[in-house]
Amino acid sequence: MKIVIIGSNGTIGSGVVKFLKNFKLYNNLEIIEANSKDLDISDVESIKKFFNKIGKFDHLIATTGSVAFKTLADSQTQDWDLSLNNKLMGQINLVKYGVPYLTNNQGSFTLTSGIIVDQAIKTGLLASTVNGALHAFVKTASYELRTQARINVVSPAPLLESWEGYQSYFPGFIPVSAKEVASHYAKAIFGITSGEVFKVGY
Amino acid sequence: MKIVIIGSNGTIGSGVVKFLKNFKLYNNLEIIEANSKDLDISDVESIKKFFNKIGKFDHLIATTGSVAFKTLADSQTQDWDLSLNNKLMGQINLVKYGVPYLTNNQGSFTLTSGIIVDQAIKTGLLASTVNGALHAFVKTASYELRTQARINVVSPAPLLESWEGYQSYFPGFIPVSAKEVASHYAKAIFGITSGEVFKVGY
Repeated sequence: MKIVIIGSNGTIGSGVVKFLKNFKLYNNLEIIEANSKDLDISDVESIKKFFNKIGKFDHLIATTGSVAFKTLADSQTQDWDLSLNNKLMGQINLVKYGVPYLTNNQGSFTLTSGIIVDQAIKTGLLASTVNGALHAFVKTASYELRTQARINVVSPAPLLESWEGYQSYFPGFIPVSAKEVASHYAKAIFGITSGEVFKVGY
Repeated sequence: MKIVIIGSNGTIGSGVVKFLKNFKLYNNLEIIEANSKDLDISDVESIKKFFNKIGKFDHLIATTGSVAFKTLADSQTQDWDLSLNNKLMGQINLVKYGVPYLTNNQGSFTLTSGIIVDQAIKTGLLASTVNGALHAFVKTASYELRTQARINVVSPAPLLESWEGYQSYFPGFIPVSAKEVASHYAKAIFGITSGEVFKVGY
């Protein structure tokens, strides 16, 4: 079983890799780690080349995607462009161009949103908007892809492993471990759900 | 009280204009009707010029915004660009650049999403994604703009007045009259809510 992890050197991605490598239920998991040096998710051509290079796979997990942290008043067109092109369209295009590479109709896509859509924080407006779009996309895409693949999204609380840098943005939040977050990606790929939002740590 | 209706010659917009002109509770409503000949909501410079021209206002209602109707497989980059730049960023930028033109902090913005985010239809994936983004934006923006303005969104079922052209896309749906939809924009601007999604006809 070939599992592609996009953003495998990030806090969540590396947690997912570790979790899957230690996963006792299944042997012979082939894990393909991919990062910004392998593809630029905001560039459709880069995504196409990446899939062409890695070939068929069973499951894809996307744990990457940039958004700008700005208030509405401070946000500029380029901040919205970055957020929509990267975290939103990047993940959407991983699905769109990834579907033809699925080994069979038992495969899945698991995307990443985040708590900010449900619990707003200062300067989190763009993240909230993008995450809301991702939740709606995953739900509707699950119907459209019903006979081809499952698709889910993990929406984590802030990560314990990056808490030191982020805690000032999340007053009163309790961070969640990358291991706990990672477990939900495993749940998503090895389970039966589709169109599900896995809220983790909140 | 000056109320700006963007998209006033559309099915919803013209219903809102008519409803407000017949509204008995308030006199002296000054209604500014605006359409594609007055501004291009996908163009920030056009929005800025428009606000500069019309000056201060009390309430803004946006009833316009294009999205592409395509499946994921058929959708092209330009379809996503159109949908995100027009219906999503068009409405977001009306808020962003409109806030400084509010007469006072009793004003409001009312945007338009649609039923497709809650009840998926074939080729509705892009609309669903954009509407999900709008719902999240409005919720989070309502916190950010709390002391400056209220912001809500109306999410209508398909319109009775355009049912003939659209009914094949909405099998089993019951259309709603423009008058009923319009009443919720009035509720949004004359009421006290902020961050609310007004679901109409479903």
